[in-house]
Amino acid sequence: AVKTKPGLRKPIKHFQLNHVKTTSDPASNHERVLILTPLARFYPEYWANLLKLTFPRELVELGFIVPKTREGNAALAKLEAAVKKVQTGPKKNRFHGVTIMRQDFDTPTPQNEKDRHALAAQKLRRAAMARARNSLLFTTIGMETSWVLWLDADIIETPPTLIQDLASHDKAVIVPNCFQRYADTDGTKKIRPYDFNSWHDSPKALEMASKMGNDDVIFEGYQEMATYRSLMAYERTEGGDVRLETPLEGVGGTALMVKAEVHRDGAMFPPFSFYHLIETEGFAKMARRLGYQPYGLPNYLVYHYNE
Amino acid sequence: AVKTKPGLRKPIKHFQLNHVKTTSDPASNHERVLILTPLARFYPEYWANLLKLTFPRELVELGFIVPKTREGNAALAKLEAAVKKVQTGPKKNRFHGVTIMRQDFDTPTPQNEKDRHALAAQKLRRAAMARARNSLLFTTIGMETSWVLWLDADIIETPPTLIQDLASHDKAVIVPNCFQRYADTDGTKKIRPYDFNSWHDSPKALEMASKMGNDDVIFEGYQEMATYRSLMAYERTEGGDVRLETPLEGVGGTALMVKAEVHRDGAMFPPFSFYHLIETEGFAKMARRLGYQPYGLPNYLVYHYNE
Ligand SMILES: Nc1nc2c(ncn2[C@@H]2O[C@H](COP(=O)(O)OP(=O)(O)O)[C@@H](O)[C@H]2O)c(=O)[nH]1
Ligand SMILES: Nc1nc2c(ncn2[C@@H]2O[C@H](COP(=O)(O)OP(=O)(O)O)[C@@H](O)[C@H]2O)c(=O)[nH]1
Ligand SMILES: [Mn+2]
Ligand SMILES: [Mn+2]
Repeated sequence: AVKTKPGLRKPIKHFQLNHVKTTSDPASNHERVLILTPLARFYPEYWANLLKLTFPRELVELGFIVPKTREGNAALAKLEAAVKKVQTGPKKNRFHGVTIMRQDFDTPTPQNEKDRHALAAQKLRRAAMARARNSLLFTTIGMETSWVLWLDADIIETPPTLIQDLASHDKAVIVPNCFQRYADTDGTKKIRPYDFNSWHDSPKALEMASKMGNDDVIFEGYQEMATYRSLMAYERTEGGDVRLETPLEGVGGTALMVKAEVHRDGAMFPPFSFYHLIETEGFAKMARRLGYQPYGLPNYLVYHYNE
Repeated sequence: AVKTKPGLRKPIKHFQLNHVKTTSDPASNHERVLILTPLARFYPEYWANLLKLTFPRELVELGFIVPKTREGNAALAKLEAAVKKVQTGPKKNRFHGVTIMRQDFDTPTPQNEKDRHALAAQKLRRAAMARARNSLLFTTIGMETSWVLWLDADIIETPPTLIQDLASHDKAVIVPNCFQRYADTDGTKKIRPYDFNSWHDSPKALEMASKMGNDDVIFEGYQEMATYRSLMAYERTEGGDVRLETPLEGVGGTALMVKAEVHRDGAMFPPFSFYHLIETEGFAKMARRLGYQPYGLPNYLVYHYNE
């Protein structure tokens, strides 16, 4: 996709955006995929799952942004060791490139689940996460990037064909359903919805938004702020068609596949109230404003770590 | 700023955002400047002026996005010849890098000034310009970029110290005053304001905005839509202090200096109505939402081509 003028000692990079294809079969078409992960903790299960992905690694670039906290430092050390092992191993197993960024601003991030989800803390936290995602994105997206796969550091189980499967739908923005494994009180292994940020809008939420101040943000999944949106988390049918698609107004970012042109056109993660939405949900709105309809896959599951 | 781990055959790129400095003296501090130009026509005067800039070229990267029109093709040929001459010339005169992109979508762009400015055509046109700017920006901004200088292809005269001068103010976003040279009816050489997109907001414009539909956009400089904003274009004082700064709510993009972190945080050129603003004016609003105050320099002039 990048043509280099012959005969120049210092080449001019020529770049035709429409030579960077994003097709439903990116592996065969040699399309470059950028996997982006904001990473505060390093889970070996995340890394093991990433290594199990069958998409050709020479087409995959990885990008991480790690906070400058004590926890981040610990995560970084583990991440570096893991990356080093792969990138100094056999050439055929190496990723095309790996970038590790340190975040230069604070994220107000209580790291236990209860505090982290408290409504009051959400806006600051989500805004900081949005900034981290934007910095990571705009620092790593290259001329040859066809797809961006957002993958949180605590997504520990996906189908190994995740990239191929998501791309095969040929959607500008597509999000699997993020669940969590847990053990019932009697020890039975079960699964339950985890990410509530993928939703269809409701008249109630739109009405709430219309009455809010410019800077106010609606958050999903809080009793104090019932939106009556239909959540993709609850639209899974046991044994249902994994290829079933549903158009969405909000998307979560735990696993999220985006055609690079959507980001290039300007769709980012608003770190401020954007139509009363923020971060990945605001991104979905922004993509829609740019003419790209996000889709979700209610029956295609990925799994979040269970703390 | 980019540390490469020694001992790795395929290096991990480590990147500490806060090692990329943006100081008031970028030349001494070896800060990388990315000059970005959407280019529909190639003016030799633009290129000559660019070559006159005294900022060290080894720190400067150039990025262009050229529309896929007949006019764009002609401009591209001239641009390529000009770039080639410099980049194959003496090493010390070369820019650090040059990227030329072709735009893969149409801009509804009547190329004569009258049609181009007709209110009805503005929204489509400005939206397409915004997309072009975003694509160019997010394709070329690199890990080492400290500053982005937006410079339109028809800016044909600036002080040779443009980059140093703008950076010396150490502002996140700073815009000079864009004028135009012309000859009076009796042949006297004069100057007049050209770019009206740098302004201070007015109660009237805010009131207009509050009554508009979500998608509606206010444009500056149209009688049909008098905003009563104070335009920086009219705030120049003959012989006034060129270092005089004024905080702005809207900025134009003919020449516009931005700290890269502002773009990395997510500030882009909205191709849709954003607080009833679009493109560079929407960018100013977005920067402000992210906590960055834009400034203008009423007495520091750059000159636009006179068709
Ligand atoms: N760069 C960065 N990443 C973070 C920070 N906090 C969390 N993360 C990562 O961002 C992703 C989402 O955060 P998480 O706390 O899991 O959110 P939740 O699952 O939605 O509650 C995960 O990959 C985290 O490792 C932070 O402060 N900075
Ligand atoms: N990529 C691209 N650049 C364009 C297009 N139209 C104009 N430009 C460039 O964008 C800049 C601003 O456009 P111009 O027509 O001068 O706008 P005005 O001076 O504000 O009326 C100039 O550098 C043009 O050469 C377009 O369709 N695509
Ligand atoms: Mn998580
Ligand atoms: Mn112009």
